[in-house]
Amino acid sequence: MNILIIGAAGMLGTKLTQRLLRDGTLGGTTIDTLTLADAVPPAAPEGAIAVTADLSAPGTAARLIERRPDVIFHLAAIVSGEAEADVEKGYRINLDGTRALFDAIRQVHGYVPRVVFASSIAVVGAPLPFPIPDDFHTTPLTSYGTQKAICELLLADYSRHGFLDGIGIRLPTICIRPGAPNKAASGFFSGILREPLIGKPAILPVPDTIRHWHTSPRSAVGFLLRAATMDLAPLGARRNLSMPGLSATVADQIEALRRVAGDAAAALIERRPDPVITRMCEGWAAGFEATRARALGFTAEDSFDAIIRAHIEDELT
Amino acid sequence: MNILIIGAAGMLGTKLTQRLLRDGTLGGTTIDTLTLADAVPPAAPEGAIAVTADLSAPGTAARLIERRPDVIFHLAAIVSGEAEADVEKGYRINLDGTRALFDAIRQVHGYVPRVVFASSIAVVGAPLPFPIPDDFHTTPLTSYGTQKAICELLLADYSRHGFLDGIGIRLPTICIRPGAPNKAASGFFSGILREPLIGKPAILPVPDTIRHWHTSPRSAVGFLLRAATMDLAPLGARRNLSMPGLSATVADQIEALRRVAGDAAAALIERRPDPVITRMCEGWAAGFEATRARALGFTAEDSFDAIIRAHIEDELT
Repeated sequence: MNILIIGAAGMLGTKLTQRLLRDGTLGGTTIDTLTLADAVPPAAPEGAIAVTADLSAPGTAARLIERRPDVIFHLAAIVSGEAEADVEKGYRINLDGTRALFDAIRQVHGYVPRVVFASSIAVVGAPLPFPIPDDFHTTPLTSYGTQKAICELLLADYSRHGFLDGIGIRLPTICIRPGAPNKAASGFFSGILREPLIGKPAILPVPDTIRHWHTSPRSAVGFLLRAATMDLAPLGARRNLSMPGLSATVADQIEALRRVAGDAAAALIERRPDPVITRMCEGWAAGFEATRARALGFTAEDSFDAIIRAHIEDELT
Repeated sequence: MNILIIGAAGMLGTKLTQRLLRDGTLGGTTIDTLTLADAVPPAAPEGAIAVTADLSAPGTAARLIERRPDVIFHLAAIVSGEAEADVEKGYRINLDGTRALFDAIRQVHGYVPRVVFASSIAVVGAPLPFPIPDDFHTTPLTSYGTQKAICELLLADYSRHGFLDGIGIRLPTICIRPGAPNKAASGFFSGILREPLIGKPAILPVPDTIRHWHTSPRSAVGFLLRAATMDLAPLGARRNLSMPGLSATVADQIEALRRVAGDAAAALIERRPDPVITRMCEGWAAGFEATRARALGFTAEDSFDAIIRAHIEDELT
């Protein structure tokens, strides 16, 4: 089996790569070739080929699929803040890049690879019901979310035409995101757990009552693997699925931290309210029904205790 | 006031042009310039400027907005069957053309025209609830519907950024469509009324029980005018509205024809069942709630008697 990961240098791409190299197989089939592509040079671990590639540059997509990968994980995107600040770049990378990939595939007669597209809960925006049903309309409040929603539509249409065999998965916020603190407005959801778990302080800019939609990196990789190997016939023309996750308040997160790591860890969280971040959070999804995805066998953690323990196992031991 | 109609040579563009020329004003303001653009040379009635323009060709969009129209009606599209058969052309005209228009507007600093985009009920596809709520997801089953859904997303995002002041209106099937019978699969909805009203036979390829979502050309023009002049602040970031219409079965249509034009007219309808057309119809929208649009003052006929009488007044007298 020949696998291509686009956006392989990101957090999720790195985790997926590690998992595929460890397993050596996907869906019971031996992995012969694993190609890692990214706009920033991806690390090239033993057993993988690394390619630096800007998907939106002319000819890049066709070159990336020259070896006809059976499965393509398309995880590449510029993030929300950058897509909002530089509208042209956002559309070029997040929309035109994806369309270039889909068109390159379409133009190869008889080549119909499985394409797993990483979409996002940013395709919806306030006012939102809770939980959000699977048939809720896409009402993004960012250009990033708009671009993801557009790519979902392209993926479904190209799959319907038989140009590719696509599935889009709307990932919850990944928590606990490993690594150093980043500047994302949502970063504190991970920070208030990740930092105290290694004895460091963390800042909480929102009230305890903020509810959000989470899944662990481990579950997210599980979604990608399932999406890559499952029978897509039951999806019909509706190729985009809201993934399961855990709907939890910040208070739920802190209580779980206290249970798993004790009062001393929880005491490292400093409350420093930020009205701007709070307002942003209030516009985000608090949780999805994810009925279709659950019925199709996608699973996620059902408690923050489990999410924290997964982080400890995967990152701290 | 300076008005631009793109797609002016089509049925709706022609009706809109006639209405604007007759009124001489829009929203109480005198119309100084009315420019009619279309890929096929539009007729140039007294008082309007006609321009032949392919919106998807480089530079065309910038040229069309050179005189900075205050209101732009964007009605141009290739139809469903053609967009399905020629995927590249469909995306080029229906998606890239629209995006070129929006980008040309974005690139003019301080220019924020009202853009009225003609969307379609084709943005949804079976299985569908009845009636379809305003917050139902877009699940198109054609490339045409996909392109309309994508343009809705672009319109909302560009409006949110303040690049333009857009509103997308999802038009029901226009019935009674004037003119000669065409080859559209949905053509019979109009044909079974239009032809008998002038003493000609018509073919009905589906069962009487098929339910569909209709509005008259007159109401559709009313939607466009309202969309061009209303305050859009109440829409917030959700700039796309399902228009009101009349949900009716074919039996409802025939009974109305009988009431308005008599048994002899109804007897001109020949039942010739076509399983392919029937199956297509079963996948189409049977009706929308259109709650938001109605609350915002958009109105349509509430009976097929009224639709038939509007046709007689507008086309046959």
